[in-house]
Amino acid sequence: MTAARKKDLPVHLIRRYLEPGPVVLVSSRYKDETNIMTMGWHTVLEFSPSLIGCMITSANHSHDLIRKSGECVINIPTADMISKIIAIGNSTGGKGFDKFGEFNLTPQKSTKVGAPSIKECYAHFECRLYDRKMVNDYNFFIFECVKARVAVTPKYPKTVHYTGDGVFMLSGKHANHARKFRPENL
Amino acid sequence: MTAARKKDLPVHLIRRYLEPGPVVLVSSRYKDETNIMTMGWHTVLEFSPSLIGCMITSANHSHDLIRKSGECVINIPTADMISKIIAIGNSTGGKGFDKFGEFNLTPQKSTKVGAPSIKECYAHFECRLYDRKMVNDYNFFIFECVKARVAVTPKYPKTVHYTGDGVFMLSGKHANHARKFRPENL
Repeated sequence: MTAARKKDLPVHLIRRYLEPGPVVLVSSRYKDETNIMTMGWHTVLEFSPSLIGCMITSANHSHDLIRKSGECVINIPTADMISKIIAIGNSTGGKGFDKFGEFNLTPQKSTKVGAPSIKECYAHFECRLYDRKMVNDYNFFIFECVKARVAVTPKYPKTVHYTGDGVFMLSGKHANHARKFRPENL
Repeated sequence: MTAARKKDLPVHLIRRYLEPGPVVLVSSRYKDETNIMTMGWHTVLEFSPSLIGCMITSANHSHDLIRKSGECVINIPTADMISKIIAIGNSTGGKGFDKFGEFNLTPQKSTKVGAPSIKECYAHFECRLYDRKMVNDYNFFIFECVKARVAVTPKYPKTVHYTGDGVFMLSGKHANHARKFRPENL
């Protein structure tokens, strides 16, 4: 697991890690309750402000914590954490159930939000609820990332991408095609 | 390129190909104008109806065609099409500019929408605009997939996933972890 050294990342650059579509772990806290959920339905929406849209079903306990606190942390787990990613997806949060303890993950104090970050993950994107008007109809939360921290190495994390039916795609090689781009499109 | 034989796919299963987060090609048509754009900011929103949320900036010519026609096709290109994917992203649509001709792609009649599908792609998801209330504020279109067709082989396409800065992640291996899931969570 990437308990490696982390560095700050300008928030408009988080698309580097989110746009490829990895499964993420969302940590949240409201009052004395903390939770973690596995999430695959998310998209970047804007560079600046740094906006992310996330579908978090109301059947999920995290939905309430995030709605009430207006905050969460989007953490990017790596492929070696696959069993924990699945186990967290299988579990149901609730009062008195400590997912950090249950899944042997380390809560780490975040900088700008009350929700803890998950130390073992490659990256932490601290988020505040930016627009809740799609929550009632679609369970779709628009967050602003207000602080980003990522591991110093490796340059790109080995991530997992869910296809349904218990099958994950593992991220493969990276290829730089920058010379084929018009500079303003990079 | 996957000009292979295609089969129908129940629309609630399109998450299999979209949730991993590939770059897609969106084809659109309004009256006698047709366009293709490269898109990386999208997410699955619901199984049934089969909903997809897409950020399509108003700077993009496709934005207008889709807004006016209320339709598009989301096509999934494969890694061998990378140069065309980039060239389409570099290009700007407009009256009289035929991207199918320019990039040597084959327009194929769709089943339920007026926009053509791109024959060389692995999959075609024909979409109708389902909710436009986030378009003004976020350029965020919610589509319903009304018809899905995918290549018969291979089981999973080799896709490209954009990280920004001209760098693409190529999809890697698939791993089946179904036995670790609670059946209701698959």
